[in-house]
Amino acid sequence: MQSVDSYRDEILAAIAPLPPERVALADADGAVLAQDVTAAWPLPGFDNSAMDGYAVRAADVAGAAADSPVTLEVTGEAAAGDTAERSVAPGRCVRILTGALLPAGADAVVPVEWTDGGTTRVRITRPAEPGHAIRRAGGDARPGDLLLPAGTRLGAAQIGVLAAAGHGDVLARRRPRLTVIATGNELAPPGSPLVPGMIWDSNSYMLAAAARGLGCQVTRHPTLRDDPDAVLDALRRAAARADVLVTSGGVSMGGEHDVVKAALAALGSVTFRRVAMQPGMPQGFGLLGPSATPVFTLPGNPVSAFVSFTLFVTPAVRALQGLKGERAGRRTARLAGPVRSPEGKRSFLRAVLGPQDGQVTALTGQNSHQIAELARAQALIVVPEPVTGLPAGALVELIELP
Amino acid sequence: MQSVDSYRDEILAAIAPLPPERVALADADGAVLAQDVTAAWPLPGFDNSAMDGYAVRAADVAGAAADSPVTLEVTGEAAAGDTAERSVAPGRCVRILTGALLPAGADAVVPVEWTDGGTTRVRITRPAEPGHAIRRAGGDARPGDLLLPAGTRLGAAQIGVLAAAGHGDVLARRRPRLTVIATGNELAPPGSPLVPGMIWDSNSYMLAAAARGLGCQVTRHPTLRDDPDAVLDALRRAAARADVLVTSGGVSMGGEHDVVKAALAALGSVTFRRVAMQPGMPQGFGLLGPSATPVFTLPGNPVSAFVSFTLFVTPAVRALQGLKGERAGRRTARLAGPVRSPEGKRSFLRAVLGPQDGQVTALTGQNSHQIAELARAQALIVVPEPVTGLPAGALVELIELP
Repeated sequence: MQSVDSYRDEILAAIAPLPPERVALADADGAVLAQDVTAAWPLPGFDNSAMDGYAVRAADVAGAAADSPVTLEVTGEAAAGDTAERSVAPGRCVRILTGALLPAGADAVVPVEWTDGGTTRVRITRPAEPGHAIRRAGGDARPGDLLLPAGTRLGAAQIGVLAAAGHGDVLARRRPRLTVIATGNELAPPGSPLVPGMIWDSNSYMLAAAARGLGCQVTRHPTLRDDPDAVLDALRRAAARADVLVTSGGVSMGGEHDVVKAALAALGSVTFRRVAMQPGMPQGFGLLGPSATPVFTLPGNPVSAFVSFTLFVTPAVRALQGLKGERAGRRTARLAGPVRSPEGKRSFLRAVLGPQDGQVTALTGQNSHQIAELARAQALIVVPEPVTGLPAGALVELIELP
Repeated sequence: MQSVDSYRDEILAAIAPLPPERVALADADGAVLAQDVTAAWPLPGFDNSAMDGYAVRAADVAGAAADSPVTLEVTGEAAAGDTAERSVAPGRCVRILTGALLPAGADAVVPVEWTDGGTTRVRITRPAEPGHAIRRAGGDARPGDLLLPAGTRLGAAQIGVLAAAGHGDVLARRRPRLTVIATGNELAPPGSPLVPGMIWDSNSYMLAAAARGLGCQVTRHPTLRDDPDAVLDALRRAAARADVLVTSGGVSMGGEHDVVKAALAALGSVTFRRVAMQPGMPQGFGLLGPSATPVFTLPGNPVSAFVSFTLFVTPAVRALQGLKGERAGRRTARLAGPVRSPEGKRSFLRAVLGPQDGQVTALTGQNSHQIAELARAQALIVVPEPVTGLPAGALVELIELP
């Protein structure tokens, strides 16, 4: 059996990051920058007003006070989006609105609250220092300043600065396209009637949701029946249109009913192995087709599929975007009660946080088909390979679930 | 001026949760259950095999050992998805695959690893206790068991259990439809050429990304020019198709250029106020049109818009789905250096975590137009209203940014 860490290392060594491409800004959240983005122009692009008020020469209002107001002639109005070039002569001013281009000659903005709000002449009752309420060109960023380094995952604020700096698109690694395919003659769509022997397909819905949670663009492929030729054909077609392919089912002991293994083993590019973990022992990984699309063949038990996705597909999706290291979410807690674990396998026990702060409680149903228990879990307790049992109070590593 | 807390309370009091509706399972991740979901059938639905092997009568193999194997006649094969009703007579067995319906009469499954794998006769070298490798019907959930309580936000594992329990759709509050509209004559699309006085629109892209991050279904409306009639018409149309509407710009001091305020103030259902916060003082909120769609009129400065979205739109989106309380993400840290804050306003200072564990460092650019600084921020430092300054080492509340 292969260790969890060795298997994950093997996967990450085989994943090539997606080629950078131009991604339109409106589609870029969740993408990862493939180059440093620097400011090409100053940000803001021009001196402008931070408030509604009057653009003045500060010297003209230096003596203004409530009991000795200064009156200036208002020669015009500058609004945001107004591109006319104005100027302020001594003794005069221009009414100005937030964001408007500062007229030539003006070196301060008197807020409207310090005035009588006049339109042809304005009485000003407080002085404004030079620079008051002015946002200088380049005050946020100067040309050449690094705005965002390569490797930045784009969230809302990063999208905002790219837009503000004029980038209609960026060179980035987009959100990966991930296709999920469940296989098995036993699978029926949820909501349809069942007879004994059949079950409702849960894995394709569950894994599609998990992949969307990672930011992937997800396709849930119709469920496939146990026909190796049809399965191989469907996987090849899906691989050509996806950045990563995830199957569930058909990978256990390898008989004719293990259709995914039967379909892919002959190609040689996808290998099957037993990984020293519980749940999730039977795993397959490789690259499929001319596109060398990474394919994960997850076990069909829903809990096994979920844990395998968390441990192996999640870091692979990050690697496709050129991201290194783990997502946050690992921490430690103390066991509220004892747990058991098979020797030689790393266990991932479904658990809830509590009952006390810093504690974690393993759920009672730890079998790999017990999805009702999984749906209650907030974390996985990690029990190392050599450990067969841990007492209440033991410190354990947790993987928090999203 | 209204306090941040009072304003938020006013918003939450006005938000009615979306009406529950049937949501198809494939679209249901991110939705919030509007009713308890109980198991209608046992889960699993029938006794089935947990392994590949042979379904036997345990009594028949009780004496099996490596040096005294038991040989049984194999009378058939049961695969997953096979709905034929089989039975196992004494001295006989049925080859069985993982997930297959357990034949009548069988009370244990001998794993294939304990046998010679025979197809007509099989040699078994270890005994199997009654119940071995059998998943009993109802072992995960019994009819009537609560699977998920009302108010559960559906993630991957919850989608999985709903599917496994046969739900093709659920009664839920779906992910809200949120429309973002930026207004202003000064706005040009990122990537287009600019002249002084014009800026690239960043808010609509930024807020759309923030709303997608909350799980909303987002529409980014084309930018509107400063024409109150056209703006009102566009807002009314957008409100009819959205669960929540977010505008940016046009809400400062209230002249003719403050087009959003001009368009909405006359309706009476949207009110404008100054909130005691920095950044983000000018705020408007109300209900628009026959659909009573909540509308947030955020200030046009990008940092103000971002902080306002975080403080007010985020809890409103949660309230639309019937979720109470805050998202996780508030914690405390110690200031790495001193900070200042205006008296009487709650400040939200852009900050990075560190340099040491448990510390936070305010960024240098705290003006409300400094989006380049915002894009570097990992958290907002919250400085309470009466506080005008805090020294290095002071314990502060943080809002972590996604």
